[in-house]
Amino acid sequence: MSEKKSWAYLNRVIEGPSRELWALLNAGYDADAIARGVRTRASWIGELARVTEARYQVDSAQRDLEEAQRRHARLITPDDEEWPTTELDYAFGCADTGLSEHLHTYQSDAVSPHALWVRGANLRMLTGSAVGMVGTRTATRYGIAATEQLVSDLAGHHWTIVSGGAKGIDTAAHQAALAANAPTVVISACGIDRVYPSDNRALFEAIPTAQRPGAIVTEYPPGTPPQRHRFLTRNRLVAALTQGTVIVEAAWRSGALNTLSWAEGLGRVSMAVPGPITSTTSLGCHQRIRHNRAQLVTSGADIRGLLEALSACDTEQQYELAFAPDEIQALSRNELRIFDALPRREARETDAIAREAGMTVPLTVTLLVELSRRGLVVREDTCWRRTADQN
Amino acid sequence: MSEKKSWAYLNRVIEGPSRELWALLNAGYDADAIARGVRTRASWIGELARVTEARYQVDSAQRDLEEAQRRHARLITPDDEEWPTTELDYAFGCADTGLSEHLHTYQSDAVSPHALWVRGANLRMLTGSAVGMVGTRTATRYGIAATEQLVSDLAGHHWTIVSGGAKGIDTAAHQAALAANAPTVVISACGIDRVYPSDNRALFEAIPTAQRPGAIVTEYPPGTPPQRHRFLTRNRLVAALTQGTVIVEAAWRSGALNTLSWAEGLGRVSMAVPGPITSTTSLGCHQRIRHNRAQLVTSGADIRGLLEALSACDTEQQYELAFAPDEIQALSRNELRIFDALPRREARETDAIAREAGMTVPLTVTLLVELSRRGLVVREDTCWRRTADQN
Repeated sequence: MSEKKSWAYLNRVIEGPSRELWALLNAGYDADAIARGVRTRASWIGELARVTEARYQVDSAQRDLEEAQRRHARLITPDDEEWPTTELDYAFGCADTGLSEHLHTYQSDAVSPHALWVRGANLRMLTGSAVGMVGTRTATRYGIAATEQLVSDLAGHHWTIVSGGAKGIDTAAHQAALAANAPTVVISACGIDRVYPSDNRALFEAIPTAQRPGAIVTEYPPGTPPQRHRFLTRNRLVAALTQGTVIVEAAWRSGALNTLSWAEGLGRVSMAVPGPITSTTSLGCHQRIRHNRAQLVTSGADIRGLLEALSACDTEQQYELAFAPDEIQALSRNELRIFDALPRREARETDAIAREAGMTVPLTVTLLVELSRRGLVVREDTCWRRTADQN
Repeated sequence: MSEKKSWAYLNRVIEGPSRELWALLNAGYDADAIARGVRTRASWIGELARVTEARYQVDSAQRDLEEAQRRHARLITPDDEEWPTTELDYAFGCADTGLSEHLHTYQSDAVSPHALWVRGANLRMLTGSAVGMVGTRTATRYGIAATEQLVSDLAGHHWTIVSGGAKGIDTAAHQAALAANAPTVVISACGIDRVYPSDNRALFEAIPTAQRPGAIVTEYPPGTPPQRHRFLTRNRLVAALTQGTVIVEAAWRSGALNTLSWAEGLGRVSMAVPGPITSTTSLGCHQRIRHNRAQLVTSGADIRGLLEALSACDTEQQYELAFAPDEIQALSRNELRIFDALPRREARETDAIAREAGMTVPLTVTLLVELSRRGLVVREDTCWRRTADQN
């Protein structure tokens, strides 16, 4: 059968992301081989046998692909040009450092998707310069006005607005993007044929049009109903497919905080918008700012300032980096901040480096890992130091 | 003439705080001797001759004291039991480290007052556990509601609310304290016989009553009109006479930010309340939080948490400290945070120590100076290190 059908089969028989599937893909098996292995219960599929136990006999690949087509949607996979490789590799590479506390709880989800159902524009294009914007479902007028204000600026600077399509802040973010004629992406937690919440049908229909690039994206096959665990799994994709996530309004235990934790765990910039202290609707935001787990942002300019050093937008910087005469000069602005936060000839704790650089701990870890890949720093237990050459 | 009359004379002929006067007081001259020296243009008064040039022939001491009495006010000086020695010595001792950037601009004001005109309760008692609460004169409904919420909590925990008696947030703070039957202090920028702004006459009259301790305080003699430079000079006293200052609502260039800078410069805890980003009324607060120059606070409990380690309230801790078996165990919670932020056998920059301890730079400097007075740390240019014994 065609490779695409094999992917559709695997996506149906494996619920959500699968470390076991990635192990096989990374070992060099292709989708056809793995699909065949699963179907025939080959011994070499290892742990994937357990994962696919319940559904391996279901084969709705053809039907799922046809259903997607009927909905003007397509299935994309790591085999496709359009697969957002850069963003996903970076995010889940960061997750693999295992240094984020959040990821200890959500470990099984800290894995890249293997297939995405997409209705709308090219996903790789959409996610090159993208901001996640999430918040409470019970938004106040203030929260909505704040969202509109931020999106309006970001839209004017060609950033894609990514959110979860939920009521409240998510909806306000998507709508503001449409109003500003800016690209927006809904990461959904159900099949591409479903609309959740159903009130948002008109909004979801309006997003992917010829005039204005946008997309509805999900990692679940057609027909999958929205369920609580899928929302949490979905949240990681908002963080993974953007350079940073902004939380606009979130009370003490808002689900949006989960998305912000993913941004931290996946090496993204986590940001929070302050709000009135006379209601509890911004409590979660204030807590994250106070504990240095999110940067306080009050405008689109603040957000752009934090993201531009990391995004593909900054072409001037990219040019500089490409022609830098030495390794240190080739560092991005954020990498340099981290490198400079390391004293000469002395190891320093991750926490201390983060404080020194004025960055959150997870982002610091991400950048340290990148610096170590380039041989500029080495890790020693919970400390890091410059390599001998760099002292 | 009586010592009190000499102080009244000096307070009249010297405008505002005077480093030159303090030099003589610290050299052991008393107020009588200095007043005589000024009057007779004695050569030993040094620089004070220049300062008193314009007015030394004016002697309204008797009249000023009588005017104060008529207003149910009194003059207090360093000779009085009631003088808030602890607070003023601490604050201006910190100022003398000269390490706050703010104080470079306002150097001439970074000096303790030498006399205060007071109407109301014992000032030393009032300032033992006190919070400065300031903000814009053009307060929004949100700012006023936020102020009321914070004051209501602080009042319930026996904190004195200190402010400048101005329109807007200041007035809201004083009024909320009265409503909660809590002590409140107005630091005024004109004579004790004047009311500024005049709309606040009823409020100022209500503050010092037998039922509820409170006071109106000024360092200017009777008849002094409010003028712009006096507001700035006055601001330092809000910071000096409290353990910390909270800024509730302040736009980009609000005068209230000046008070917050004084809190930093005088080794106090500087705090800011976040607000909506959809108006510019909290911009100044957000900027200070973002630049780590103020702690984000959202409740009275947050404020109390930050202040209790520094205030006379914390009697349990004071007991512990008095009986501590060694010097390190005798440190206050905040001093210990700073000490722990110093690595063994290595000097560290003030900035890095502040980040490590999670405190503002000015407060860090203050605590470092205190630690060095006790021989626990030494300063080396812009760095600090533990003394040999403490490594």
